[in-house]
Amino acid sequence: MTGRLHPSGTVLGAVLLSAAIVAWSDEPLTMAGVMEAAAPTDWRRIDQADLMYVDLPHGRVVIEVAPAFAPMHVANVRTLTSQKYFDGLAVLRSQDNYVVQWGDPDADEDDARRFGAAAANLAPEFFRAASGLEMTVLDSADAYADSVGYVQGFPAGRDEGRAWLTHCYGMVGVARGSAADSGNGAQLYVVIGHAPRHLDRNVTMLGRVVHGMQQLSTLPRGSGSLGFYESGEERTSIVSVRFGDQIPAADRLALEALRTDTATFSDLIEARRTRLEDWFIDPAGHIGLCNVPLPVRVAP
Amino acid sequence: MTGRLHPSGTVLGAVLLSAAIVAWSDEPLTMAGVMEAAAPTDWRRIDQADLMYVDLPHGRVVIEVAPAFAPMHVANVRTLTSQKYFDGLAVLRSQDNYVVQWGDPDADEDDARRFGAAAANLAPEFFRAASGLEMTVLDSADAYADSVGYVQGFPAGRDEGRAWLTHCYGMVGVARGSAADSGNGAQLYVVIGHAPRHLDRNVTMLGRVVHGMQQLSTLPRGSGSLGFYESGEERTSIVSVRFGDQIPAADRLALEALRTDTATFSDLIEARRTRLEDWFIDPAGHIGLCNVPLPVRVAP
Repeated sequence: MTGRLHPSGTVLGAVLLSAAIVAWSDEPLTMAGVMEAAAPTDWRRIDQADLMYVDLPHGRVVIEVAPAFAPMHVANVRTLTSQKYFDGLAVLRSQDNYVVQWGDPDADEDDARRFGAAAANLAPEFFRAASGLEMTVLDSADAYADSVGYVQGFPAGRDEGRAWLTHCYGMVGVARGSAADSGNGAQLYVVIGHAPRHLDRNVTMLGRVVHGMQQLSTLPRGSGSLGFYESGEERTSIVSVRFGDQIPAADRLALEALRTDTATFSDLIEARRTRLEDWFIDPAGHIGLCNVPLPVRVAP
Repeated sequence: MTGRLHPSGTVLGAVLLSAAIVAWSDEPLTMAGVMEAAAPTDWRRIDQADLMYVDLPHGRVVIEVAPAFAPMHVANVRTLTSQKYFDGLAVLRSQDNYVVQWGDPDADEDDARRFGAAAANLAPEFFRAASGLEMTVLDSADAYADSVGYVQGFPAGRDEGRAWLTHCYGMVGVARGSAADSGNGAQLYVVIGHAPRHLDRNVTMLGRVVHGMQQLSTLPRGSGSLGFYESGEERTSIVSVRFGDQIPAADRLALEALRTDTATFSDLIEARRTRLEDWFIDPAGHIGLCNVPLPVRVAP
């Protein structure tokens, strides 16, 4: 691949990214082609302070947090990790086509004492003001939101005044009880099935799994109601949870995410919308919010 | 729960199924309430000839096939199972947030000889004529199709002339090569992540997992490209694949599916759209095609 898609470094508008581009190119606009043509500046190094490392006995999961959407909850989870709160706790729940959830298997209402300097109750961060956030808007019909797109690498919804992270596959949220302020980050969950978008704006979302998702998605489903594990033997223990700036440099992963505010990302969306690869006989011409890949790689 | 939702057995139209119904009822319209109020006639016994039993060393998966959409492919798979084609073959692929696929690990172009009475190539059944099919239409914006809904228990899309099964979680399709007629049912796959709807109308869909989905969705992801397993040790072997009418009665599961052409199912859709359970603070008021549950139970 060459620079043919951006012959003079200009940003290709969506209007050019139709099937017509095939006629102008040596080869069609495919995801492989777009990724090969990406410039180093299309990638951003994820700050280690924004990477949460969840070490399980069988492997590591890395979550990028989203302080732009959930500053209080991210800070609270950081406080919990600095106190080694999660170490020795467990994965509590694995419900097929829904979520995997982790935290304290002995949680009860007296747990506040274990939170130490972390808050036991936090005001909800179900959404935030839309102003001040740049969103790459996706041209797509969406069942759940007026407008959807991508903000700083995360899938998001928006209406006139509000913006929120959406429950796409791999997104991480804060479990809560019935009260809006009953979540605090001591129990988190990740989406492992079709996007349960009805949860949008009902929980605080704080990040996305960017590495090792299969360590969570393949966990045996729990035998109890809602996929909860019913015994200690069923549960997977948590070795430790730390942010990248809380661990030795040698233990960190250097991860880069494709910037979602670039022409390359817009090209990627169109490549996945039009599906010009030979295999497709009836290319969709459409794409949904949770179907756009959000590439992450180990830094070259 | 009582008959309060259908006080005189009449069908509640969508217009009644708004939040206003709360004011008319003792309790809100929830999924639990709708299911409790379901009549025995809202359930249909699935014909054993339409149930495909995939027995793996660690458990059983049961697929309901859809001859209304893929008569030739269903018949071909039936021929293959009658010849014990799949017995001793393997799960070949597990790609996170995409598909699990099974068939012959030694497949190559000479495999036709192993198909016996089954066809090696079949005309595609990517879609069928929309006429002659009753669809319970879902009132929802859909990124991929003009109109979506449920036909005989399966999620489906429709345009002016065509109807097709859609790639929701748990749906089963026929793997194929580049040629439209290169699928024959000897390799099948199931969706284990967010619905890859761009595949709609590009492959023949022939059914849906109705039991034991977790036996497939939790399989370790393959280490090779596209989630293919790279060695025999990685693969899970297939003990046998048979249709219900090909096995002793004692080995069958008596399964019932909630009819999707009933008022109960329409109520279920509305209950999941409005989410009146106490836990929800900002009920979505929306629902997507692949978010509506399609209940299946062991016959009482």
